[in-house]
Amino acid sequence: MRANGSKPIPQVVFPLTPYGPISRRFASDKPTIIPHNPLPPPGRRSRVLHYFLKSATYLGIFIGVGTVFVVAFFVYDASTYREDLSAGDIPVSELALAPRRGGPKNLPIIEHFIDDDESEHSRAQKHKPKLVILGTGWGSIGLLKELRADDYHVTVVSPSNHFLFTPMLPSATVGTLELRSLVEPVRRIISRVHGHFLKGAAQDVDFSAKLIEVSAMNSTGQEERFYLPYDKLIVGVGATTNPHGVKGLEHCHMLKDINDARQIRNHVIQNLETACLPTTSDEERRRLLSFVVSGGGPTGVEFAAELFDMLNEDLCKYYPKLLRNEISVHVIQSRSHILNTYDEALSCFAEARFAHDQVDVLTNSRVKEVQADKIIFTQKDENNNVITKEIPMGFCLWSTGVSQNPLCKTIADKLGDQQNNRHALITDTHLRLNGTPLGDVYCVGDASTVANNASDHIVNFLQTLAWEKGKDPKTMQISFADWRQVAKRVRQRFPQAAGNLKRLDKLFEQYDKDRSGTLDFAELHELLRQIDAKMTSLPATAQRANQQGVYLARKLNKLAQARHGLDLNEVEYGDLDDAIYKPFEYRHLGSLAYIGNAAVFDFGGGIGFSGGLLAVYLWRSIYFTQSVSLRTRVLLAMDWGKRALFGRDLMNF
Amino acid sequence: MRANGSKPIPQVVFPLTPYGPISRRFASDKPTIIPHNPLPPPGRRSRVLHYFLKSATYLGIFIGVGTVFVVAFFVYDASTYREDLSAGDIPVSELALAPRRGGPKNLPIIEHFIDDDESEHSRAQKHKPKLVILGTGWGSIGLLKELRADDYHVTVVSPSNHFLFTPMLPSATVGTLELRSLVEPVRRIISRVHGHFLKGAAQDVDFSAKLIEVSAMNSTGQEERFYLPYDKLIVGVGATTNPHGVKGLEHCHMLKDINDARQIRNHVIQNLETACLPTTSDEERRRLLSFVVSGGGPTGVEFAAELFDMLNEDLCKYYPKLLRNEISVHVIQSRSHILNTYDEALSCFAEARFAHDQVDVLTNSRVKEVQADKIIFTQKDENNNVITKEIPMGFCLWSTGVSQNPLCKTIADKLGDQQNNRHALITDTHLRLNGTPLGDVYCVGDASTVANNASDHIVNFLQTLAWEKGKDPKTMQISFADWRQVAKRVRQRFPQAAGNLKRLDKLFEQYDKDRSGTLDFAELHELLRQIDAKMTSLPATAQRANQQGVYLARKLNKLAQARHGLDLNEVEYGDLDDAIYKPFEYRHLGSLAYIGNAAVFDFGGGIGFSGGLLAVYLWRSIYFTQSVSLRTRVLLAMDWGKRALFGRDLMNF
Repeated sequence: MRANGSKPIPQVVFPLTPYGPISRRFASDKPTIIPHNPLPPPGRRSRVLHYFLKSATYLGIFIGVGTVFVVAFFVYDASTYREDLSAGDIPVSELALAPRRGGPKNLPIIEHFIDDDESEHSRAQKHKPKLVILGTGWGSIGLLKELRADDYHVTVVSPSNHFLFTPMLPSATVGTLELRSLVEPVRRIISRVHGHFLKGAAQDVDFSAKLIEVSAMNSTGQEERFYLPYDKLIVGVGATTNPHGVKGLEHCHMLKDINDARQIRNHVIQNLETACLPTTSDEERRRLLSFVVSGGGPTGVEFAAELFDMLNEDLCKYYPKLLRNEISVHVIQSRSHILNTYDEALSCFAEARFAHDQVDVLTNSRVKEVQADKIIFTQKDENNNVITKEIPMGFCLWSTGVSQNPLCKTIADKLGDQQNNRHALITDTHLRLNGTPLGDVYCVGDASTVANNASDHIVNFLQTLAWEKGKDPKTMQISFADWRQVAKRVRQRFPQAAGNLKRLDKLFEQYDKDRSGTLDFAELHELLRQIDAKMTSLPATAQRANQQGVYLARKLNKLAQARHGLDLNEVEYGDLDDAIYKPFEYRHLGSLAYIGNAAVFDFGGGIGFSGGLLAVYLWRSIYFTQSVSLRTRVLLAMDWGKRALFGRDLMNF
Repeated sequence: MRANGSKPIPQVVFPLTPYGPISRRFASDKPTIIPHNPLPPPGRRSRVLHYFLKSATYLGIFIGVGTVFVVAFFVYDASTYREDLSAGDIPVSELALAPRRGGPKNLPIIEHFIDDDESEHSRAQKHKPKLVILGTGWGSIGLLKELRADDYHVTVVSPSNHFLFTPMLPSATVGTLELRSLVEPVRRIISRVHGHFLKGAAQDVDFSAKLIEVSAMNSTGQEERFYLPYDKLIVGVGATTNPHGVKGLEHCHMLKDINDARQIRNHVIQNLETACLPTTSDEERRRLLSFVVSGGGPTGVEFAAELFDMLNEDLCKYYPKLLRNEISVHVIQSRSHILNTYDEALSCFAEARFAHDQVDVLTNSRVKEVQADKIIFTQKDENNNVITKEIPMGFCLWSTGVSQNPLCKTIADKLGDQQNNRHALITDTHLRLNGTPLGDVYCVGDASTVANNASDHIVNFLQTLAWEKGKDPKTMQISFADWRQVAKRVRQRFPQAAGNLKRLDKLFEQYDKDRSGTLDFAELHELLRQIDAKMTSLPATAQRANQQGVYLARKLNKLAQARHGLDLNEVEYGDLDDAIYKPFEYRHLGSLAYIGNAAVFDFGGGIGFSGGLLAVYLWRSIYFTQSVSLRTRVLLAMDWGKRALFGRDLMNF
């Protein structure tokens, strides 16, 4: 807008472009009077040109400001190259260089580290209580990110020096995401609490001498063992894949760490390449392109979905079209639905999606044996007859739950009666490892299971409720409607019990011994006790491990704060944990799964959501925010952009 | 600029912001007159606020336009998910499914492919001349990118299904760049010319039956062999690293492909981790942190520089400081300078840079033997005495020139006298493999060497020059000044001769047999012939291979264009290549090397450039533009940004 005229009439003009004001944010309260407008009326000037010039101006400003940012980035970049090479002498304690030997096996005992004396800061931390963390999974990282710096002398021991964002691992198997976008160097995470990292594997723990036996690869490539003393020990070593006693698992891939993902990617692409060879027969080509996933849980389902996406979206572009026609993806699931821990509606949605995608879902099926070129399984038909079937296959992923890893077995054997769970180490509700001195050893994540007393919890709750309502719980009668309410509460509080609470009417009938149509309190208690017994453990998920890690960090922070007072009062024994912090309580925030250009969300308590591309974006944004660092977030965003622009890279190396 | 005043002075105002005009691009011819400006004069309003509001407006527009782009990207992204699964029947020829057997070894002969009939397009190409390309390096990719689509039935055979941008490989060994940013799927490059790809390795060639014997991994993981017929064959299989007959190279890393880079990265980081272990002795720690590079060429020098950068910039942040103090990097070079093919001033700059960076450069040294924990080498001192020395080491890179790979050896043996070069296959100046039927087999890149007749070329040139100047070449006398001109021309035309043209005065003296102070024509010819004999081959660089590939593609395009006419005239024999296209001429565009937050450029003919960070950015931008695809360019830019923001990831997996 232009002002033009000879009379001095007051006016306020706030033009943002040559052609008119778009913002009056800075306008004064006085009305604007424009005596004469030199611009031709809208009708005369082309509206298209108007908007074109407007856009051009905006774009110009965009490019200008963008350039400023790029230049600023280069200036910043230039500042990141280190020229200064000055390095002074580093004080190192003699004990760090030549550790004393001792312990039951007369191994070196590592009481001091080479970086314990390198700065004021590290010297101050040297004599703090020794907190040793085994493993670098969700539990350990949750703890490390929440732990207050400087309260402990922290050491992390693990065979892998990176943290892996496991829930997105299936995406990395086919190149939707890059491997490095899912991992974060542990040393970077540890540096916040000024901790130490040792690349090695814990082999055994001496609970009375408070020594961990660690094995590591020494400078000549041989295994070497040493003792690491601890004041507080956190066991977060995870679990291995459950073989379920099936023969031939050497022909399968697992999906536990980043190397598994790379091997899977290479194997899938090698199969595609071999299928292209002119000497490969038709039958062999079909076998090579038959991909089998054993296990219909989130990992198996997401892998099948990602694999299918890759085959559907990227394969056709560069490989012979014949391949696309001969590809098959099979999911073998022992239960009656895939994603059976989710709400049934969501399972059905996922199954419908897979049916549309021509992913073959085989439910009620158990794998009997895996051979190099086929998988043999039994399937129950509608009449409960068990039929043995086989599928020729060129690739098999084995993802069927977790099993105890060697260190946990060693610990469980050592602790005897106190540890009678074959699948995980049992802790109390304070996450303290049962059978060890109180407050010394904690266990988190898949390695552990919390002994829960669900029935007691619920019964307590009901009793309180009854008393409040003025009834005597002893004589209270529970109708089927009441029972549904109770079951809902159990499901919310203990989501892992949902599987045992499916047929509420049957359960009710079964426990209503006197056929009264109502349950009395004793009958209800018995019912809940049975469900409790069946309810094995909290789900083996990232979510649970992370919550446990964060919980422990908060408790350790509190303990460190309280230490001075406790020392003054000479309090050394007793249930300090219980005195200082609440027991661990799992809050189920929901489960998600990607199912091939669609996603399902189970927020617990029957609240679910499933849908197409928008759900996929939601699924991504949830994991994006959950991601461990700014670095991984930027990398994830870049990877998704890369997939959109360039597709997945089908290369193996 | 603000207008303020009551007098009607003509002025033109084109405000872009509320506070003043910044552009006069859209000015009309008529002057605009503003009688009164209601804005307060500059003095009254704070200038800081003024600029702040201006910046805020620009930033607002920037964010607004940015948001539009992001939304547009999401819309585009949403369009890339394929929902349509329709797949019709694909016609496949019976011969493609069951190839006939034949040839000397009675193997399957692959005349048709499974995707030869899948579309109109591929059917049209089916009976075009069969162009087979062995290898997916610089030569092959240069050819594929320049070849016109649809003139040939193209098949590429290689053990690796990706093209690797080799000049930046040293950057990938320490995580400055990611592995995937340096590779491009070959199928994506081939798809432009509607070619085929077979993942396999050529083992032998039958030049009379025109069959290539290919070995590939079949569906059961066994090696399988078949014949691939060709009309035109391009051998671009590269070379292996030259072992120079040294014992113990199994303790060294090579740096040839992307897996080497990954192994190096893992080994370096494993050494750092082992050095952190408390059980590692001081002496062993120093050995683990002693990195040796054998070979002072561009690869060795760039690796040493990248390694040093990583150790200097990233190590200190997360590893004990003691490590930094005990690190040493050694470069062992057999010549008197590192980067000895570059201009001497640049070599000296690089050496000075390494001296500043405390990278230990050992010149005039030859490795005798590599052992698991040390490297033994001989070094000439100033008095030419040979002294045997050793360095304890934890890592060794072997990068000392190229040697013939197995296929080239097989071919050379088969062709007998015609192929007497131990290092590479000899071609004529049309890149046709000597000893094979004219126009059938070409050879490019490191696998080949062009028989060059430099002396004849130069003498021809001089004769022409002499005649033009009215002199008889037979009686012409060449002064030292003339000789310098000749030498300059030789260096420009045959950069690989530069090494033999260093002491011009000595050479002149040596060949001036009659001590006349001038050379006669015969003496000069003899001198040049000697230099020619010493001048082994064109440099084994990406640049040369790429130029050869592009040259061949242009020739093949011309040949295809001319084919119809030649067929009509029944021209089948004779030197078609020479009739249709010029011989190959290498144009040296310069050499670059990164030397640790600095870079050197040798543009040939004594024109060089060396410098710090600005040179690094120039070095990057040259490789950025040379990069193979938009995809790799975007990834490279992202990687450089990542390094600036987050440093290198020190993780091994």
